[in-house]
Amino acid sequence: MTSHLVTGIAELVTHDERFAGPLGTVRGAALVVEDGRVAWVGPAGSAPAADRRTDVDGRAVLPGFVDSHTHLVFAGDRADEFAQRMAGAPYTGGGITRTVTATRAATDDDLRGRLGALVAEARAQGTTTLEVKSGYGLDVPHEERLLRLAREVTPETTFLGAHVVPPGTDRSAYVDLVTGPMLAACAPHARWADVFCEPGSPHAFDGDESRAVLTAAASAGLGLRVHGNQLGPGPGARLAVELGAASLDHATHLDDTDVAALADAARHGGPVVTLLPGVELSTRSPFPDARRLVDAGVEVALATDCNPGTCFTTSMPLMVALGVAHLRMTVEQAVRAATLGGARALRRDDVGHLRVGARADLCVVDAPTVTHLAYRPGVPLARTLELR
Amino acid sequence: MTSHLVTGIAELVTHDERFAGPLGTVRGAALVVEDGRVAWVGPAGSAPAADRRTDVDGRAVLPGFVDSHTHLVFAGDRADEFAQRMAGAPYTGGGITRTVTATRAATDDDLRGRLGALVAEARAQGTTTLEVKSGYGLDVPHEERLLRLAREVTPETTFLGAHVVPPGTDRSAYVDLVTGPMLAACAPHARWADVFCEPGSPHAFDGDESRAVLTAAASAGLGLRVHGNQLGPGPGARLAVELGAASLDHATHLDDTDVAALADAARHGGPVVTLLPGVELSTRSPFPDARRLVDAGVEVALATDCNPGTCFTTSMPLMVALGVAHLRMTVEQAVRAATLGGARALRRDDVGHLRVGARADLCVVDAPTVTHLAYRPGVPLARTLELR
Ligand SMILES: [Zn+2]
Ligand SMILES: [Zn+2]
Repeated sequence: MTSHLVTGIAELVTHDERFAGPLGTVRGAALVVEDGRVAWVGPAGSAPAADRRTDVDGRAVLPGFVDSHTHLVFAGDRADEFAQRMAGAPYTGGGITRTVTATRAATDDDLRGRLGALVAEARAQGTTTLEVKSGYGLDVPHEERLLRLAREVTPETTFLGAHVVPPGTDRSAYVDLVTGPMLAACAPHARWADVFCEPGSPHAFDGDESRAVLTAAASAGLGLRVHGNQLGPGPGARLAVELGAASLDHATHLDDTDVAALADAARHGGPVVTLLPGVELSTRSPFPDARRLVDAGVEVALATDCNPGTCFTTSMPLMVALGVAHLRMTVEQAVRAATLGGARALRRDDVGHLRVGARADLCVVDAPTVTHLAYRPGVPLARTLELR
Repeated sequence: MTSHLVTGIAELVTHDERFAGPLGTVRGAALVVEDGRVAWVGPAGSAPAADRRTDVDGRAVLPGFVDSHTHLVFAGDRADEFAQRMAGAPYTGGGITRTVTATRAATDDDLRGRLGALVAEARAQGTTTLEVKSGYGLDVPHEERLLRLAREVTPETTFLGAHVVPPGTDRSAYVDLVTGPMLAACAPHARWADVFCEPGSPHAFDGDESRAVLTAAASAGLGLRVHGNQLGPGPGARLAVELGAASLDHATHLDDTDVAALADAARHGGPVVTLLPGVELSTRSPFPDARRLVDAGVEVALATDCNPGTCFTTSMPLMVALGVAHLRMTVEQAVRAATLGGARALRRDDVGHLRVGARADLCVVDAPTVTHLAYRPGVPLARTLELR
């Protein structure tokens, strides 16, 4: 078993309470990796010997980003729709149908190639754990296929048959499909189930429909996630709490009751709130207030929501910068949300931190501090550190 | 003389009125470079033969970005101040003094190394023309030194002795210095002069002081630029028009009279308005409204303002994305502003477009359209195309 010593770390974020500050930071640090796991972490002066060595030459290192919310399996591109919307043309919502049509028509290898390219793009920017949802199939064979392909790249696969009610489909028949044969076909390939709960949106699911989708999924052994409270107030937050979801995602429109319920639940492992500021950026929408949630004691995650319609980015460094600029987060809160917060949203204790025993998923920043992720927005400073 | 054919261009932005749309776009394009200049541009099917060939494999190409407003010559780093401000600590404005102290203490080679690294970083993201200001010297020898170093990397050097009144200095004595001995020492190394005109700010310059700085600089043969209307209403816009400045920069707070004056001047080559949305992002400030200016007929540029205090980014692709997301620009308006707009802000007719005769400064986007610069925010898609 080869051991690998990483030296020259100007600032190391560990989320280990043995070390200083809200991020468990060690300055002038070193780290030893054995068998793909963190075996030792601490000040460089007391580092043990190892078989190999990589020097990062005064850069900052943090846990690889955990992007806990993506829609990465799809075909086609909607750049034209984006440009039209930004020019002032109204968004009809018909866009998702284009992606569904293109995705159904694509071969497995085409989808695999596109997915692989996006995973590589995310990894090149420091993301080492990705959740991937279905939701552009919307019938039994295609939803099952998307999850099978997603499973090839990550264990964190989410069944999102309840992404939208397909146009022209009877709502209650579609909920029956999603909770019946589609769930049965998809559950073997999924760890999670999710629903787009947005009562004000004609193609999304109301509170009762969302509850039906989530309870059926829980019965099939899947963990729960909820797209909720994105476009307006709604029952998503309270459903997520009631049904023990791992995460409530979007959460742009929360009232005081929602926040109180999330804060109360947070004391006994309730939902993480996953904020997706790239969506607000790309749709010119008001941003959620992360500080309000953090101050209430809720664990917040930052993720990309990477999808071709409302936010086509894989950049977790940009999410950190937007979290600070637009969600009122401190730098430390944003860095935590993009690493430990994402891991908790996926109920993973082996990623998102660099305590001894963690997976050796390392992100290196081409700067002396992790603050530079927000201080230098848009500059491609972060990358996954590959140890060879 | 070697000719070089570039093929496989899915979408080429030329700003040549012979071609389609607001950007002079050619789909399925080719381009021939001879002796560092564009010798031919048009549909791939009618491209002439050439000695060498580079295929960009279905990517989009546009003129290299023109970043017409940067403060790239400095030492030190203020990441800690940024983090404190984002955590809610009040910004005292003392920060610039730190940069001045660090910059004065740095050796020429240290400053040269830092400047070169930032230029390389910008170039790696598609920027091919950079303006660089002084302003962290604030005495005669140091301002002269910063411009001498800036001139090593760009002809677009700007004397900004009037960046701030150094703390503890008599205001009118400092204006006398800037308009007298400092100007005399700096003018040989500068193409432009600039002033931070902001009457509400204790360390900046009011209308009369700004007028004194600019008229003296014009008499010394320098072109004029104005930092104005950033923090509040002020005389910057009207001064820029009256004195024939090439650009009014920041311009976040313009009243109707300012916009009318800029629009009127625009009919006969008046100031470009250079918007710097990275500053608003990094200081959590309200964004200016670019659409209002474009609709009034004003030429708008987008630039980074790269500096260690209020916006430490070199990323022109991020400026395009922010222009669209936050300044109400269409994708075409933002792409124009980051290329042709910047060139006009520098009164350069050889860059910022790809008409025959232009410098062959090419930016290639790892996507089929330039829309992806805004559609895929934060993803490092753009780079300078080096022809060898
Ligand atoms: Zn989503
Ligand atoms: Zn500036």
